[in-house]
Amino acid sequence: MADRRRDRLAALGARLQAEKIDALLLTSLPNIRYLTGFSGSSALVLATPSELRLITDFRYETQVADEVGDLAQVRIEPVSLWTGLWDMLQKLPSIEMIGFESAHLLHRDFQRLLNDGSRWQWRPQLNLVEDLREAKDEDEVALIVEAGTIATNALSRTLPAIHVGMTELEVAGVLEKALRDEGSEEAPFPPIVASGPRSALPHARASSRVVQSGEFLLIDFGAQHGGYCSDVTRTFVMGEPTPEQRDIFAIVRDANHIAAHSIKAGMTGAAADGLARSYIERCGYGEAFGHSLGHGLGLEVHEAPRLARTAEAALRAGSVVTIEPGIYRPGWGGVRIEDDVHLSANGPQILTNFSRELIEVA
Amino acid sequence: MADRRRDRLAALGARLQAEKIDALLLTSLPNIRYLTGFSGSSALVLATPSELRLITDFRYETQVADEVGDLAQVRIEPVSLWTGLWDMLQKLPSIEMIGFESAHLLHRDFQRLLNDGSRWQWRPQLNLVEDLREAKDEDEVALIVEAGTIATNALSRTLPAIHVGMTELEVAGVLEKALRDEGSEEAPFPPIVASGPRSALPHARASSRVVQSGEFLLIDFGAQHGGYCSDVTRTFVMGEPTPEQRDIFAIVRDANHIAAHSIKAGMTGAAADGLARSYIERCGYGEAFGHSLGHGLGLEVHEAPRLARTAEAALRAGSVVTIEPGIYRPGWGGVRIEDDVHLSANGPQILTNFSRELIEVA
Repeated sequence: MADRRRDRLAALGARLQAEKIDALLLTSLPNIRYLTGFSGSSALVLATPSELRLITDFRYETQVADEVGDLAQVRIEPVSLWTGLWDMLQKLPSIEMIGFESAHLLHRDFQRLLNDGSRWQWRPQLNLVEDLREAKDEDEVALIVEAGTIATNALSRTLPAIHVGMTELEVAGVLEKALRDEGSEEAPFPPIVASGPRSALPHARASSRVVQSGEFLLIDFGAQHGGYCSDVTRTFVMGEPTPEQRDIFAIVRDANHIAAHSIKAGMTGAAADGLARSYIERCGYGEAFGHSLGHGLGLEVHEAPRLARTAEAALRAGSVVTIEPGIYRPGWGGVRIEDDVHLSANGPQILTNFSRELIEVA
Repeated sequence: MADRRRDRLAALGARLQAEKIDALLLTSLPNIRYLTGFSGSSALVLATPSELRLITDFRYETQVADEVGDLAQVRIEPVSLWTGLWDMLQKLPSIEMIGFESAHLLHRDFQRLLNDGSRWQWRPQLNLVEDLREAKDEDEVALIVEAGTIATNALSRTLPAIHVGMTELEVAGVLEKALRDEGSEEAPFPPIVASGPRSALPHARASSRVVQSGEFLLIDFGAQHGGYCSDVTRTFVMGEPTPEQRDIFAIVRDANHIAAHSIKAGMTGAAADGLARSYIERCGYGEAFGHSLGHGLGLEVHEAPRLARTAEAALRAGSVVTIEPGIYRPGWGGVRIEDDVHLSANGPQILTNFSRELIEVA
């Protein structure tokens, strides 16, 4: 991985020079992890076109040495990371104009730049590192593949344990244990387990609701491996489905299939969204697909690119995205089927393999 | 709860008037939940001295009605929450000076205030709502008590399943399932399961390390109930402890006992920290207690007040804090014992009940 990280620093360095900034102050922890390998919860990084300097606190002294190696100069700061930053900058007289991450710096900390950091010039920047992260390299794709395998294996283990009469929280607990048994580092987000009418709420969490016969059971969850995330949704039926449940399920399944097999680097996020949306609209359920088709996936479970009606940027080769069409009918229920897809040079590669047929849970 | 929330709005209104601001723009989700009851992940709130206005998106239409009731005027915004804010403000001509949450507003969004919101005056504010949250009311304490009971019950269920040869991740999985079975909404943070030398890392996560005989096993985790968190740590020994393990465990246990029974509203956070620290220092392990004694607990797992050497503010009656002394010896292992304590008018009430003796896990 160290060589990949050197490539990333070189790519970032070129961007700093293009932006005519001497350095970039990084405050986003996923961006810091991407560049340095450090996975702790407390760090500032100063990137110049050729060097990385990382400041963290004593709690991470051992961890930062293991993770970062010689990729960055590391400073362990006893007082405050900001104190360390000012001291470090004073020893780097060639640095005058410094970019900062506008989307990852709180106003309170921006005030520090203006006050304690008033001898430097500060320029807000957006997406300098996020843009690099959008196209995944082979190592990153391999980690997402493993995170996907952990997730689908955990779902396979969970399915036989689910039965009518359990609460959604209990189902979430079985799944969370299976994720750990399969080796997931931690959950990228708390699993959604939504039964019956709650399956119509795209952002339901697990609740104390008891799962009942004849209902949909929607499970949306992920795993994490080497810091990289997977994100998978399957919808099951408790017992035998009604014809209407079968019909709506089949529309979502086919929309997922069409989009996951037709999406390509070079098309816009809006065009990708349209692959599934136009099919669902033709089936008469356009109004019931009330969110966008998907989002990028990597060190964060939501990152660039977006697959949405308003996403005019072209998708880049190497991106990994979710494909997650759904149909939601308030009070009745909903279906969502979500897979992770790598936009490889050879076309879309589906990274999450688990049956997409309507499974009847006994 | 609705009456409590009305009391909170009244208290906030008095603070707005004292600060001479016409309104406060809330961007912190825990602060929004505290004032309105809304638990979704997307919202802006505008508070005037007498009214709350909440803007969220279509995904939360049902949920926001259930949670907020008539406590706030709710606006469902199809485009962007910020668009909704500008439109709403234009209809409120008496509002000129608006405070914003400096510690909860990203620089990118601060730029929106200066650009799209240039016809209003904006003033950074710190801790207006956090200060109210510091002293818990009875309803809040009851929720934290329940979150504590869920956590300790889950640990009781987990303990018989732990054995030498499991990985830390597997132990975390058993615990996470038990938390769900006990009804925890979600984990306030991913459980720390740290065995052997890893128990000396105060911020270890669970890893794939196999738990071995004779080692310490440190478990630091929490539960959530009604949005409120608990935070508990126990350290076990795998098999029979050495005399040194017994000695160090006893020092930490006694430091926990001294602090949890002696802490009081009115003393400073530094004095509270000193209750445990001075004891550990007298035992010769001062250098090995490398973090602060504890932190406030509520809707967030880390909130005001701090119990730390640098915390000069007096602790307020009604606060709920963690008491978590530890001794860490790099390469050898560490012990931490953590409970949640309510600083009631009648003195400290310990909310998390689970044995503090050294349990030998078979």
